[in-house]
Amino acid sequence: MVANPVHPPTPAADELLAELPSRLPPVERHAELPAGFAAGGATCGIKASGRPDLAVIAAPDGPAAAAGVFTRTAFAAAPVRLSQAHLAASGGFVRGVISTSGSANAATGPLGEADQLEVARTFAGALGAPVDAVLCMSTGVIGTRLPIHLVAGGVARLVPDGLSRDGDGLLAAAEALRTTDARTKVATTTVTLPGRDGAAARSVRVSGIAKGVGMIHPAMATMLSVVLTDAPVSPGVLDSLLRRATARTWNQLTVDGDTSTNDTVFVLASGAAETIEVAPGSEAAATLGTGIEAIARDLARQQAADGEGASTLVTCQVSGAADDPDARAVARAVVASSLVKAAVHGKDPNWGRIAGAAGNARLADGAILAGGGLSADEAERRGGRAAQVEPARLRIAIAGQLVYDGALGGPVAFDRAAARAAMGGPEVLIRVDLGLGAGSGEGFGCDLTEEYVRENSDYTT
Amino acid sequence: MVANPVHPPTPAADELLAELPSRLPPVERHAELPAGFAAGGATCGIKASGRPDLAVIAAPDGPAAAAGVFTRTAFAAAPVRLSQAHLAASGGFVRGVISTSGSANAATGPLGEADQLEVARTFAGALGAPVDAVLCMSTGVIGTRLPIHLVAGGVARLVPDGLSRDGDGLLAAAEALRTTDARTKVATTTVTLPGRDGAAARSVRVSGIAKGVGMIHPAMATMLSVVLTDAPVSPGVLDSLLRRATARTWNQLTVDGDTSTNDTVFVLASGAAETIEVAPGSEAAATLGTGIEAIARDLARQQAADGEGASTLVTCQVSGAADDPDARAVARAVVASSLVKAAVHGKDPNWGRIAGAAGNARLADGAILAGGGLSADEAERRGGRAAQVEPARLRIAIAGQLVYDGALGGPVAFDRAAARAAMGGPEVLIRVDLGLGAGSGEGFGCDLTEEYVRENSDYTT
Repeated sequence: MVANPVHPPTPAADELLAELPSRLPPVERHAELPAGFAAGGATCGIKASGRPDLAVIAAPDGPAAAAGVFTRTAFAAAPVRLSQAHLAASGGFVRGVISTSGSANAATGPLGEADQLEVARTFAGALGAPVDAVLCMSTGVIGTRLPIHLVAGGVARLVPDGLSRDGDGLLAAAEALRTTDARTKVATTTVTLPGRDGAAARSVRVSGIAKGVGMIHPAMATMLSVVLTDAPVSPGVLDSLLRRATARTWNQLTVDGDTSTNDTVFVLASGAAETIEVAPGSEAAATLGTGIEAIARDLARQQAADGEGASTLVTCQVSGAADDPDARAVARAVVASSLVKAAVHGKDPNWGRIAGAAGNARLADGAILAGGGLSADEAERRGGRAAQVEPARLRIAIAGQLVYDGALGGPVAFDRAAARAAMGGPEVLIRVDLGLGAGSGEGFGCDLTEEYVRENSDYTT
Repeated sequence: MVANPVHPPTPAADELLAELPSRLPPVERHAELPAGFAAGGATCGIKASGRPDLAVIAAPDGPAAAAGVFTRTAFAAAPVRLSQAHLAASGGFVRGVISTSGSANAATGPLGEADQLEVARTFAGALGAPVDAVLCMSTGVIGTRLPIHLVAGGVARLVPDGLSRDGDGLLAAAEALRTTDARTKVATTTVTLPGRDGAAARSVRVSGIAKGVGMIHPAMATMLSVVLTDAPVSPGVLDSLLRRATARTWNQLTVDGDTSTNDTVFVLASGAAETIEVAPGSEAAATLGTGIEAIARDLARQQAADGEGASTLVTCQVSGAADDPDARAVARAVVASSLVKAAVHGKDPNWGRIAGAAGNARLADGAILAGGGLSADEAERRGGRAAQVEPARLRIAIAGQLVYDGALGGPVAFDRAAARAAMGGPEVLIRVDLGLGAGSGEGFGCDLTEEYVRENSDYTT
């Protein structure tokens, strides 16, 4: 016998018209470098445009704890594979990250692997660090070799004397990450952790930079990000916090469903803040996790807003799901739907497309679910399954208008002109309540425009 | 210890430039009604346009064996739920199918269920059949009630005297299925089965009609099809043949990844042909299966070519996969990629986007895999997993030009002007060989055009 489910009280209609309350600290979009890091950017000539193309972040005072998440494609680029090897070989303690823009170093075979190792050697030499203590990222055209002599020249000029310990250095690094991005993407926040040896609580800083996903050229589809903090934390704890934040933010971001050869996110922690060491499963870990997630979320939203050909950021917030993975599945399905994306572009408050996407939502696969907090067994069991959705309990609000209430038989009367006007802004909020439980989650995307098609049709390999 | 895999001989380059050899009988695109059926279409006034909107297929001489596959959305429309119930209640023996166009009867609640039952009763009454011996389909606007008095009038005029036992009746039914389809979709083939009681072999006919997927209006996204044969075969065998054919054809069809509330495929077998009864697992079942799959494949290709805003049919054929499910996963990923679809529109032989899609390919979920021939356990285990792809073994040909050979380091020189010219036709073939095994499969899609975005942005609910 299965007991009848006990449904939670459904939220009042006006709660459906606004954003979900946030558990995350507030974020500011400016460049602040946490203590224990130096950063900078340079132009070494990989890009024909002459724009900055070399970004460097260093931990000059000693190794920083590090963790990474990477593209899952079978065609992972040379810098992805090298960084994975270096994280394993170094035990997750690194001295720096180097990122090159203009050439992806993907589909370049054994020669590309050798090139990337040479870049790592040059950078490690300039830092006075062992080669496996540096991490690499790259973005740009697929199938072209990295001009390693140009990179070596840039490193020689930038490392260590051209690096800065303040926000200007981080901003320069963020600018050098860009390829077709219309805007430089930076974010910063603070969280408060207990002081060391019983001292008063102190704030630790979490900052991030990112590029993508502006796929004007398909070979530049890559999304890269580096998140930095001065909290004292082990690579293992950092890894679990990064995976959890990624499951809730970057894995909920979609521009067009395609995945790059080079997608990489690193998080580095210098330990310079005078707080307690962040222990696994501790309250401090949860607090630091909110800081990392806040930065990841904000950068993901900057990436969605800057999607190729996009004119509108679309956020779908789902409440009332059986659990959080179900909520994330529905939110992702809504923002990924081509029909929903086109409807947003047309300022059409089209509940049918949103309900249709929700009704077909499927959970991510096991590996991503496990990162998001499920046990490995449960993640394996549920990967790819349909999310639980009951039409008679579903409610949908678009841009502040309740448009669908399953309990009332479906579509409800609403002020269409007001909804269309509200959809004309730079951001549209779609709220879905499933009426089944306490699970919630978000998805981030953008509208689908003629400009997207033009940009991706006109390109020639 | 895992042994080194033994790779099969890789196909010669020129084998990669052409279509895979077919195991299926040839198909003609005209309307031929198999013996034991009558069909017709009428205008009953559901559509404001005054075009035909009522399609009927009947088995006037006695019950036909039947099987169905349906949308898997949580928002299944009333006709889908009623047909599922009737297939179960009747043991899979039915007297007819009725399809209405112009109103989907989806998101209409209990009143919509009652309306659909009333349509079934009216139709069954006209046939002199029990109500659970009729199946229903519907397509059109979501959230509007079926005008059942108009449908009743159409049924009274059409059934039984307006039905025809020849191809004209089937063509009329196919025309009445259409909503925004630019073209009427019909297909027919024959296969040869052993004669009854040792008599000489006889041919049986397999024919089909279909609508969609022309999503000019999102509420008309539905794909509907009916496949008919005069072979003598049980509902159980028919069900397994339909599931297998669907896994290889319709489940490999994508226009934009969205799924309708009303998607339905029925297959009906009258048993009028004087051949042996098609037994489970027999050679005759395999032969009949090729006929059903040939019709399903051809109708799926007609649907892809008529996709919303589409100007080019895209077929991806994959060989050399570890097995067939892997091949189908890669083929589907390629035709579903927005970047590949936009590249086809731009006549851009862009191997990077194809390799990228292949490298991210994931298998369908367990339920679909099981229909495609895997055991339930194996399907469950593999659902949602990554397909096996090794960049160094991958080869890609586009429109008759080899463009990528992993064994040679990746991209190869090719005649770009010839490739671009070949991509200007109404159909583009993308051939992928994975170099890993004997698995093969196909995917069917269309290009992504500015017209798609315009059509789906301009629509207002």
